[in-house]
Amino acid sequence: MTDKLWGGRFTAKAEEWVDEFGASINFDQKMAYEDLEGSLAHVKMLGHQHIIEPEEAQQITIGLKSLQDDLGAGKLKFTVANEDIHLNLEALLTEKIGPVAGKLHTARSRNDQVATDFHLWLKHRLPNVLDALKNLQIEVVNLAEQQADTIMPGYTHMQHAQPITYGHYLLAYFEMFERDYERFEFNQKHTNISPLGAAALAGTTFPIDREMVAEELGFEQVYHNSLDAVSDRDFAVEFLSDASILMMHLSRMAEELILWGSYEFNYIELSDDFSTGSSIMPQKKNADFAELVRGKTGRVYGGLMGLLTTMKALPLAYNKDMQEDKEGVFDVMDTILAAINVFNGMLSSLTVHKEQLNHATQNDFSNATELADYLATKGIPFRQAHAIVGELVLKGIQTHTSLQDMPLADLQKASDKIEADVFEDLKSDVAVNRRTSLGGTAVENVKKEVQRAKQIIEQK
Amino acid sequence: MTDKLWGGRFTAKAEEWVDEFGASINFDQKMAYEDLEGSLAHVKMLGHQHIIEPEEAQQITIGLKSLQDDLGAGKLKFTVANEDIHLNLEALLTEKIGPVAGKLHTARSRNDQVATDFHLWLKHRLPNVLDALKNLQIEVVNLAEQQADTIMPGYTHMQHAQPITYGHYLLAYFEMFERDYERFEFNQKHTNISPLGAAALAGTTFPIDREMVAEELGFEQVYHNSLDAVSDRDFAVEFLSDASILMMHLSRMAEELILWGSYEFNYIELSDDFSTGSSIMPQKKNADFAELVRGKTGRVYGGLMGLLTTMKALPLAYNKDMQEDKEGVFDVMDTILAAINVFNGMLSSLTVHKEQLNHATQNDFSNATELADYLATKGIPFRQAHAIVGELVLKGIQTHTSLQDMPLADLQKASDKIEADVFEDLKSDVAVNRRTSLGGTAVENVKKEVQRAKQIIEQK
Amino acid sequence: MTDKLWGGRFTAKAEEWVDEFGASINFDQKMAYEDLEGSLAHVKMLGHQHIIEPEEAQQITIGLKSLQDDLGAGKLKFTVANEDIHLNLEALLTEKIGPVAGKLHTARSRNDQVATDFHLWLKHRLPNVLDALKNLQIEVVNLAEQQADTIMPGYTHMQHAQPITYGHYLLAYFEMFERDYERFEFNQKHTNISPLGAAALAGTTFPIDREMVAEELGFEQVYHNSLDAVSDRDFAVEFLSDASILMMHLSRMAEELILWGSYEFNYIELSDDFSTGSSIMPQKKNADFAELVRGKTGRVYGGLMGLLTTMKALPLAYNKDMQEDKEGVFDVMDTILAAINVFNGMLSSLTVHKEQLNHATQNDFSNATELADYLATKGIPFRQAHAIVGELVLKGIQTHTSLQDMPLADLQKASDKIEADVFEDLKSDVAVNRRTSLGGTAVENVKKEVQRAKQIIEQK
Amino acid sequence: MTDKLWGGRFTAKAEEWVDEFGASINFDQKMAYEDLEGSLAHVKMLGHQHIIEPEEAQQITIGLKSLQDDLGAGKLKFTVANEDIHLNLEALLTEKIGPVAGKLHTARSRNDQVATDFHLWLKHRLPNVLDALKNLQIEVVNLAEQQADTIMPGYTHMQHAQPITYGHYLLAYFEMFERDYERFEFNQKHTNISPLGAAALAGTTFPIDREMVAEELGFEQVYHNSLDAVSDRDFAVEFLSDASILMMHLSRMAEELILWGSYEFNYIELSDDFSTGSSIMPQKKNADFAELVRGKTGRVYGGLMGLLTTMKALPLAYNKDMQEDKEGVFDVMDTILAAINVFNGMLSSLTVHKEQLNHATQNDFSNATELADYLATKGIPFRQAHAIVGELVLKGIQTHTSLQDMPLADLQKASDKIEADVFEDLKSDVAVNRRTSLGGTAVENVKKEVQRAKQIIEQK
Repeated sequence: MTDKLWGGRFTAKAEEWVDEFGASINFDQKMAYEDLEGSLAHVKMLGHQHIIEPEEAQQITIGLKSLQDDLGAGKLKFTVANEDIHLNLEALLTEKIGPVAGKLHTARSRNDQVATDFHLWLKHRLPNVLDALKNLQIEVVNLAEQQADTIMPGYTHMQHAQPITYGHYLLAYFEMFERDYERFEFNQKHTNISPLGAAALAGTTFPIDREMVAEELGFEQVYHNSLDAVSDRDFAVEFLSDASILMMHLSRMAEELILWGSYEFNYIELSDDFSTGSSIMPQKKNADFAELVRGKTGRVYGGLMGLLTTMKALPLAYNKDMQEDKEGVFDVMDTILAAINVFNGMLSSLTVHKEQLNHATQNDFSNATELADYLATKGIPFRQAHAIVGELVLKGIQTHTSLQDMPLADLQKASDKIEADVFEDLKSDVAVNRRTSLGGTAVENVKKEVQRAKQIIEQK
Repeated sequence: MTDKLWGGRFTAKAEEWVDEFGASINFDQKMAYEDLEGSLAHVKMLGHQHIIEPEEAQQITIGLKSLQDDLGAGKLKFTVANEDIHLNLEALLTEKIGPVAGKLHTARSRNDQVATDFHLWLKHRLPNVLDALKNLQIEVVNLAEQQADTIMPGYTHMQHAQPITYGHYLLAYFEMFERDYERFEFNQKHTNISPLGAAALAGTTFPIDREMVAEELGFEQVYHNSLDAVSDRDFAVEFLSDASILMMHLSRMAEELILWGSYEFNYIELSDDFSTGSSIMPQKKNADFAELVRGKTGRVYGGLMGLLTTMKALPLAYNKDMQEDKEGVFDVMDTILAAINVFNGMLSSLTVHKEQLNHATQNDFSNATELADYLATKGIPFRQAHAIVGELVLKGIQTHTSLQDMPLADLQKASDKIEADVFEDLKSDVAVNRRTSLGGTAVENVKKEVQRAKQIIEQK
Repeated sequence: MTDKLWGGRFTAKAEEWVDEFGASINFDQKMAYEDLEGSLAHVKMLGHQHIIEPEEAQQITIGLKSLQDDLGAGKLKFTVANEDIHLNLEALLTEKIGPVAGKLHTARSRNDQVATDFHLWLKHRLPNVLDALKNLQIEVVNLAEQQADTIMPGYTHMQHAQPITYGHYLLAYFEMFERDYERFEFNQKHTNISPLGAAALAGTTFPIDREMVAEELGFEQVYHNSLDAVSDRDFAVEFLSDASILMMHLSRMAEELILWGSYEFNYIELSDDFSTGSSIMPQKKNADFAELVRGKTGRVYGGLMGLLTTMKALPLAYNKDMQEDKEGVFDVMDTILAAINVFNGMLSSLTVHKEQLNHATQNDFSNATELADYLATKGIPFRQAHAIVGELVLKGIQTHTSLQDMPLADLQKASDKIEADVFEDLKSDVAVNRRTSLGGTAVENVKKEVQRAKQIIEQK
Repeated sequence: MTDKLWGGRFTAKAEEWVDEFGASINFDQKMAYEDLEGSLAHVKMLGHQHIIEPEEAQQITIGLKSLQDDLGAGKLKFTVANEDIHLNLEALLTEKIGPVAGKLHTARSRNDQVATDFHLWLKHRLPNVLDALKNLQIEVVNLAEQQADTIMPGYTHMQHAQPITYGHYLLAYFEMFERDYERFEFNQKHTNISPLGAAALAGTTFPIDREMVAEELGFEQVYHNSLDAVSDRDFAVEFLSDASILMMHLSRMAEELILWGSYEFNYIELSDDFSTGSSIMPQKKNADFAELVRGKTGRVYGGLMGLLTTMKALPLAYNKDMQEDKEGVFDVMDTILAAINVFNGMLSSLTVHKEQLNHATQNDFSNATELADYLATKGIPFRQAHAIVGELVLKGIQTHTSLQDMPLADLQKASDKIEADVFEDLKSDVAVNRRTSLGGTAVENVKKEVQRAKQIIEQK
């Protein structure tokens, strides 16, 4: 018989490295707070329901609170011999209050206990994600307001397409982060469900009150099926999936920050706090933090793929495979909180080269659509207008002449519908400001959308 | 100049295989219906807003409706030369009504057009997913009701843990499918947004009415930022993510169906419709369909990983990479609809070997927890009770004697708290029926949960 | 009893859509040629070993060859009712030659048959991949030779780091493609193994000669374990993994082609054949093909993840899950062959803006390392040299003065080790040509490496 | 100016958490040994080439060796302020030997340094993987030898298919591990290449001798292109891919170990060292370690997907994204070494229930193929034989009579070709031993393959 708490029927002793391999204490100690929190609620209920004597409940409660203090003071010592956070804390509790500690495990199992801890852990941290996202949105909107009238090239296929404003561009990310926010909010729905009381898999014979425990812990619902309660990890996969989409968004903005800070674009400059130098090339100012976030997209996608793979084809109810659910989630939580904050910091300390941005729209044929629209307004079918402009652009490229610099006569050779008023339309600020359709890039639109964004943020 | 619609500025002709590589018509023709639908709404608005003449709008509408008829009749012929569904349909429209067709593309771009088509495509099909899930839930609940009192071993780690009922087991899947349902419902929120009117990326100078178009198409919202409108694929990633979690659930049940139909378990038998034979071993009755669904989990995970990868680090707004967004979604939609229906069929035609299930709980020590609980109720700390039972089980395994078959005297040697009433507790049906805690496996609970499940279904 | 070939023990008839779901004929018909090839070798051996009568073998051979002709002529009609390519061809053979066709399936099973077909399919196509890669390498080396002395900025973190030559940059991809080549060669090792004769899973009681069949089919080895033979898909996962790494390489070059063709870089111009225009913005010339390849990276990664997921935790030997092994591999093969060829085409028709590339190294402080190296050569520890240069660069940025444009006196204020000869070192072509260390960017090195590359290619 | 080593041009100080986010010292300290090893080789070469003074080289060498001793003694203290292992060690070296330490970084960059460290790290550990695999193969072959004649059901689709031997089954895994072995061997080819001397990206102006350094470090080749040298991570992706395939194999065997130890199968029993108990159900003996390995498959797949994603579309040469390359590889290395060893331990301490395995083949119709083969041998086309047997099996299932228990007269009603000698063929051991085709399950074959396997192992 080994000295493990569950060792009753075992007769041989495992080697150390095997224990190490099987143990989870190295990472599940991150849920120590939640484990104690769950135990406190559980024992309160056990006492209230007279499943154990009120004095016993009292003793255990005092012991648990003392462990909470020790935890806060960094004084708890965990050991691999005790395998996981649950058995470690139970052993520590026994040290403190003696064998009555053994009554705490009445009417529960490690299966519902670990599920409860994990739900609580995520439940406590999703608000942090939401707050961080909200703060990032505030930063995005502030910057968008400042840059509401900064003209720049809008890109498709990395080619200048049509002029937009930098504020308009930024608000696209406001929208993405808003959907991210909504996804993490939705994730709360499936996180805030209490598994405690499902016991090993089938419920318990003790007259427990699961709803009392759930309320005590701030859960909104209880699982209605005990098998589901101990084997559900949807909430964790949802989190990883939402985090993956968020990282996808951040990686897109990261890509742009990196490009726009390059020698060739020179649209922006990151602050020194969010850049680093080179050990060999002193002139470099690298967007290391944006690159790192872009790189960490892989880590988060990998976390998602990992848990999906682990859960594939697992029969009900608990299997040890599921011990692999936590490290990925812990790591992804750290990663996205840091990534969001890094973006907040980068945006709030960004220098925008307004003139460079504006200048980039002057000789790039990004006003070609304006000319096509001009012709379409004069009754030429859009396809035909498109073809006419296409040939003018080709000529312009060959002769290094922008559309606005071509003589009117030349333009009129392409189409007699063109008149002198065309040159007004060909200015990039005019092009921007005529795009007043809902969601369009006109400065007045951007200002309106900034106000709408602020209202959305305020309601959070 | 090539003869492509966008070929104005091009001077050379591409080889055929290159065109083939770049073209999307081979798969995006699946959105032909949605493309026509979007065009009809767009042209109605163009006429209403006097952006084109009402008679022109009328002509184009008649042409589009005629194309709809041709599509329904399978008479439309698409060509790679016309690249994608948008240009193909525009070319076909031009054939029908002449150059006025060119006015349809006023105030829009393929960028907002393809986004609109794709949103519409998914918007039309998510209700099918919800319906299929609902029908599967109905089947699960019906079977759970029939099997509410079928005793079977509950498993953890593929070991007999505690007796449960088959009905209880089935309801765990009801809960999973309910969360799947909620996820696909949530997915509708981000799908039912209209991008039309975002044009290429910046909005348009024409006085369009995006909300009118959105309403016409049954969208609930419009995108508030034109860059976001053309570059957002969150709705597609969400769908793939939800589908992955669904397949994860189905793969778990598939695993069990396969195992339970094996020679060793013999718990269930799939109907002939959902089994296949072997070309070389005539005695085989393979759970091919369950295996295939389990296998297709990989395909769906792969689809998710594919789109996440494609979208990583793409600068705004549209890039051709995004053409890769559709095939995975189309394939996953087909896959999950078929998979859900296959499960519906398998469950509705399943033969359950009740006696075999019940029999499996008789000699398996799955009543060990009952004895531990019995001792705990008599005041022995649970941990100590657990150890006592552990040693009894060890003895039982060595002597091939179940707990319920041990003489009372032997049991009392292990603990003097044990009395004759213990044998009642050791019966598997008693063990089941004493688990009346919320979510527990007692038959009365299962029946209550069946009623609750029916109410949830009815409200759909 | 159904009319399916394996239907002996079945009593009910499945609905059509279920058949459709279970059938593989829609995709495994791509292996029709290989299935016939395998059957021809098998029947030759059956006759040779007198397992069937030589005349029967003769009859079957004639039938199979006739099917080959029909296949070549596009005259074979496959049906879902016959499920897969094996049963379809067997049914067609029976139509041609009557019941003797049934003897073909002696001593084999669909399990070893499908494994054989799949091995053959990949075996036939890996040489195409190798050829395509070789051709791409030839193109890369030709271009590198032409551009051996084209000076351009070398980048790290998307920042100008040190001047390099365009030829040197291209040869980096030669090396990557060489490793890809070696990986696909290695993949042949595990592909060129014959499973035929493993039968269902355990071998057969007939006196077959597996090595004769293997030789007939051009396999290098036979599987030495029948269970492994029917359940191994390593060769397919290896292929998907190698393809993923290849796409990773192509996506990196794609990213650069896209950026370098942008307005801001203007380093290169893709030919019209490998660009496309915009439906709304006539001035655009999009690197659609590079973008598409970059996007398809997701598809290939997804294929890898899909098969890995499918194979996870599958018990031996064959399970229907494994039917999911093929579509991903077929799709990835098409994808990478097209992608390699597209790159070949893009590179062979590329216009390089040499002056623009060279010009980009003139005012970018990318010669800062030269100055640090200069100081280090004069005995200043590199770290200190680095710090000195860092401050000079800072000053230069503030005063918009390049290092080579600073007065010697100013440089000497920073370090008295600096003398007039420093200005030679600060020229970008000098910087390039002094990097003669093995693998360095000096023009003479690039020319040497071009020769080495040509030799490697010639030996293929 | 900050106090960072690369801080020359920076003017502001970053907050602590940002530093933490950007720093890699928390994980790249695992390469401390390799970093010192690389520096020792580099400085030896610098001295040898007179790039620095021989005495300086001597001083630095002594300092580095002293750091090695400190590292071995666990006395090195790393700080986030010094960012990564390279700058940390350089700072520690400076503490030891003063400013001459700054000369060590002559003619190298962190870009080639980190690549060298990472190559060395993997190069040092691949032999451990090979050794562990070899030991596992030894264990598999030993067990296969012991179980060469243990009859058991062979499965397809989790259904009894045909009888095999347990030894034969085990040898299938020998083959898989052999392919794994070959893959990790191949991975050495692309790992054992020296990047040192590529410097930042372009090579260096100092007269270094890269081949001398490579030889010193035991590398087989040097990178022939400096850009490739610093941006290649193929060797790491290959490793993750090979590890994924290995875990796929282990997960398959894990699945079987778990199932076969279940109450229903009862084929094997894991030793106590490789099982664990339950906190609530004392009768449980869970295959926790097999489950954990199966679960960790997700972690390893996730690591692969993570790095592939990170590397997608990264422009050359080094980008900070690549800092994300290491943690996944470190974690996967730990995971697979432990997983292989766990399997070794599980197999070497396994109890095999031979009688139970044999018994399982007695009443399962797994001899149906024998009857079909019997008929085929008598000249009935296999397809027809198959149908005849199918109907007999159906009758057998309905009447609970095995084929071998049917009266000869009944069998003859099905086919008059059946004679009394059929009953010999229907015995499972006869069925096994008649499968003497190469790779078949006959006991004599298994014994031969055991010898072949031993030879393969001996040659390692």
